[in-house]
Amino acid sequence: MDLLINIDSASAAPLHRQIYDEVRRAILSGRLAKGKRVPSTREMAKMLGVSRATVTLAFEYLLSEGYFQTYKGSGTYVSKHLPDELTYVSEELAEEAHHLAEEAFEQIGSSGAFPAPETSGAFPVIEPALTPAPEGQKRRRGRKLSLYGMSLRSRDWLGFPDDEPEIQFAFGRPDLDEFPMRVWNQLMNKRCRQRKLDLLDCPTKAAGYEPLRKAISRYIARARAVICDPEQVIIVNGSQQALDLVNRVLVDPGDLVGIEEPGYIGAQKAFQAQGARLIPAYVDKNGVRVDYLKARLGKDGDKLKVLYVTPSHQYPTGVVMSLPRRLELLTWAKREGTIIVEDDYDSEYRYSGKPMPALAGIDDGGTVIYVGTFSKVLLPALRLGYLVVPKDLVGVFSRAKWLADRHSSLLQQQVLADFILQGHLSKHVRRMRAIYQERRKLVIECLKGLFEDDVTIYGENAGINILLRLKTDLADDEIVARARRLGVGVVSTRQLYLQDAPSAEFLLNYGGLKEDEIVEGLSRLRAAIADKEQPLIQPA
Amino acid sequence: MDLLINIDSASAAPLHRQIYDEVRRAILSGRLAKGKRVPSTREMAKMLGVSRATVTLAFEYLLSEGYFQTYKGSGTYVSKHLPDELTYVSEELAEEAHHLAEEAFEQIGSSGAFPAPETSGAFPVIEPALTPAPEGQKRRRGRKLSLYGMSLRSRDWLGFPDDEPEIQFAFGRPDLDEFPMRVWNQLMNKRCRQRKLDLLDCPTKAAGYEPLRKAISRYIARARAVICDPEQVIIVNGSQQALDLVNRVLVDPGDLVGIEEPGYIGAQKAFQAQGARLIPAYVDKNGVRVDYLKARLGKDGDKLKVLYVTPSHQYPTGVVMSLPRRLELLTWAKREGTIIVEDDYDSEYRYSGKPMPALAGIDDGGTVIYVGTFSKVLLPALRLGYLVVPKDLVGVFSRAKWLADRHSSLLQQQVLADFILQGHLSKHVRRMRAIYQERRKLVIECLKGLFEDDVTIYGENAGINILLRLKTDLADDEIVARARRLGVGVVSTRQLYLQDAPSAEFLLNYGGLKEDEIVEGLSRLRAAIADKEQPLIQPA
Repeated sequence: MDLLINIDSASAAPLHRQIYDEVRRAILSGRLAKGKRVPSTREMAKMLGVSRATVTLAFEYLLSEGYFQTYKGSGTYVSKHLPDELTYVSEELAEEAHHLAEEAFEQIGSSGAFPAPETSGAFPVIEPALTPAPEGQKRRRGRKLSLYGMSLRSRDWLGFPDDEPEIQFAFGRPDLDEFPMRVWNQLMNKRCRQRKLDLLDCPTKAAGYEPLRKAISRYIARARAVICDPEQVIIVNGSQQALDLVNRVLVDPGDLVGIEEPGYIGAQKAFQAQGARLIPAYVDKNGVRVDYLKARLGKDGDKLKVLYVTPSHQYPTGVVMSLPRRLELLTWAKREGTIIVEDDYDSEYRYSGKPMPALAGIDDGGTVIYVGTFSKVLLPALRLGYLVVPKDLVGVFSRAKWLADRHSSLLQQQVLADFILQGHLSKHVRRMRAIYQERRKLVIECLKGLFEDDVTIYGENAGINILLRLKTDLADDEIVARARRLGVGVVSTRQLYLQDAPSAEFLLNYGGLKEDEIVEGLSRLRAAIADKEQPLIQPA
Repeated sequence: MDLLINIDSASAAPLHRQIYDEVRRAILSGRLAKGKRVPSTREMAKMLGVSRATVTLAFEYLLSEGYFQTYKGSGTYVSKHLPDELTYVSEELAEEAHHLAEEAFEQIGSSGAFPAPETSGAFPVIEPALTPAPEGQKRRRGRKLSLYGMSLRSRDWLGFPDDEPEIQFAFGRPDLDEFPMRVWNQLMNKRCRQRKLDLLDCPTKAAGYEPLRKAISRYIARARAVICDPEQVIIVNGSQQALDLVNRVLVDPGDLVGIEEPGYIGAQKAFQAQGARLIPAYVDKNGVRVDYLKARLGKDGDKLKVLYVTPSHQYPTGVVMSLPRRLELLTWAKREGTIIVEDDYDSEYRYSGKPMPALAGIDDGGTVIYVGTFSKVLLPALRLGYLVVPKDLVGVFSRAKWLADRHSSLLQQQVLADFILQGHLSKHVRRMRAIYQERRKLVIECLKGLFEDDVTIYGENAGINILLRLKTDLADDEIVARARRLGVGVVSTRQLYLQDAPSAEFLLNYGGLKEDEIVEGLSRLRAAIADKEQPLIQPA
């Protein structure tokens, strides 16, 4: 292998990281051809003058991310399933990647593979609920709200009841009791004593507290293979504000925006309120169907401004987007000039299968806006998250953040920076992964025990929720109402679909529930459905 | 006086507050005629069966807010300068109020009365920098941003240099060292130990932590005469987010929005980015010139969607809007259907003259959106502020807040609620008022000593900044550059004007500076201007 690998022992980057980066670059640039045999870890270690353990670590990353593959007893090869060159990939190679995705990559996230959508050539556009009234035509009486404001008028806008049931499966929450509040409070005390209230009131500083931006850029490089400058990290109040800024900076009323079908309600509502025309991006067992998007959007020259995706754990189906599908998506988006918004909301929790690098880690820096949040991994109450934006958009996003609310709370940014830099975040993630894995196991056992063949489970290998479809004649609303009467909150996925939703599909968020609550809650759900009583809700 | 005053000793409202409310209502509804003599405090106390001190307190409020007036030795009367009935005030009465404003009310905020603008019938509209390209016409190359995003492209968008000078007069900051961090930290410790992380993830709870909303509604009732239900209080991340939500909910591109001329840059930039067409609302010694707005807007049937004002301490002129002007403005706005956004950013600091109730305290609840912030009174780093919105807009604003960033940081909301309820806020305000009053005195002494007749000072009786106009031949940029070379940051008001700005007008923010810094900073500013050297900046 005539592979030039530059490693720099003076660099701050760990040696295994440098090897990984160099090999990856060689593969993606075509210098290292697909299918080619790779030297053994022993050979490579000797070549580079580093320990064999260092090389092994780098190889494990490359294997786990699909850049390398192994055949029993015959060594390690560059994967055949990668296009030669990501940046200038040809149409044919993208097609090939798509087919490979279908054939070669098993779905790794689901016991039941999420079924491909039944669409026979119909590729709808969901128009915004409100469009500007023609010139001269009067708006309806009362307050003169903006189109955005008018779209928020309905009381039924998001149909969550106010009161909390005893056992709540309906909201995606982490376990609040497990949050290391003592550590957090100690760090907070220290920062309060320091009183270093560096002022962020200047628009150029709106993007956040420098040390936190640095800490995050290191964290996501390690955890998600996203390589960026700290200046590309914009601190926001959780992922919802990230979406709001994307909306502001990129989307005009009438623009086409793609969102996964089914998809995250916070994104759907935000883009709809902005007046975007939504295109459903159907999801199958490998993630978003890029071929559908191509067919739909090639037709009449329309281009997607933004495509919102959750590749590490599709919300709500739990599908993990396969590597070929990721490459196909990136290649297509780059050609179209579509910005991919990658919401990596709970990527920390992965229980089986290969960990997959973020889309933003494969992108060469111009196509993907990466969204991360500490709401799932720490506390939603903190309201801290971040965007990683392409370099040419840093200025515009910083200014948009300044206009939105100047900057995020400084004390909390300082404490979070300390928390990450002192290793508490990684430790907490590891601890919680074990806890959630136990809960996930329990949820699946309970569901299978209680519902037997009447349940299909999806997306259980990652995150802190799972999707299930039940066999029942009851309407979704009836199930929700019956469960609630028994003190259990469940949410149907109906409002996560832009179009017709399958019936009796529910999202169970188990992250915040203790084991006894899970057992009790699922038993009550079973009882609610088994009940032969009169329906609570009369069909309309 | 056949005045029926109902007081209820079982009510939670203090007795003096009840008396104040009843009398005020009687005046505004016309039951208590203008010019009528009012019983003495002794008579009234006997009549109502309460202590004389209670009545005296109520009367003091009514006097200080201009509802009552006194003549030497002849007792207390209902003010003659109030229209009979605010809610149904006639055109004539509004006109009368305007004239009374000119004649009878002295300007109470300025040693130099802020000069009326020189406008001879010219009432311009400032069109947004960017308007949508006509259908089919291509936008310029590069990233496809939204119109909002495009308006933020320029690096010169807000011309603040990154680095901090030694002595900074350019930003409106409180004194960070005086913030009661020990108390804050103790409250934070307690809340952390409690771990009561009540979840606000439901859209109906996005408006904030209930006890904080209650605490704020009580605080502004007492401090600003704004009477509202806690549910009308929407917690946001400082006043900038309040403006952003107003923009979202009320303003469409092309809508007319009025902002004070000169006015607050954060509002100007936000409305401009939204694509609003801006109308300059000129300011004289009594506040916004309502007659100009009437003349401009009556002409071709245009209506203002929103008018942004800072009546308690106009930013940057420091003018305090007179009561008749307030009534004239409200009457006009109500008739036009214009929403008044009242930004009460530093009303806590008032050093002389009568305290004036907020506009929202006079409004009957449908016209004014009130904006408050803790950035000036506590810490900008906290990012906590609030909106008080009319009842019919509570739902829409809550949902807009949910879409913007779900809710504001819960822990900080909890701590702030405790801080207010335990009386620390009022205590802090009283303490800081004394400190800032000393600083203000010092600033004025120094300016007068150093610049003598070359300076005119405006708006020094309130807030934590003052406006000054210098007599000098130097260009604004030259003065800023020279001061900066001497380690002093000053900001010209040029960018606060939509149209031509006077030259050598500067805003001095002294709140965050110690006395020695003030003396040193102003001496250096004097030296910078007196310097006979070559200009640093060549005229373009």
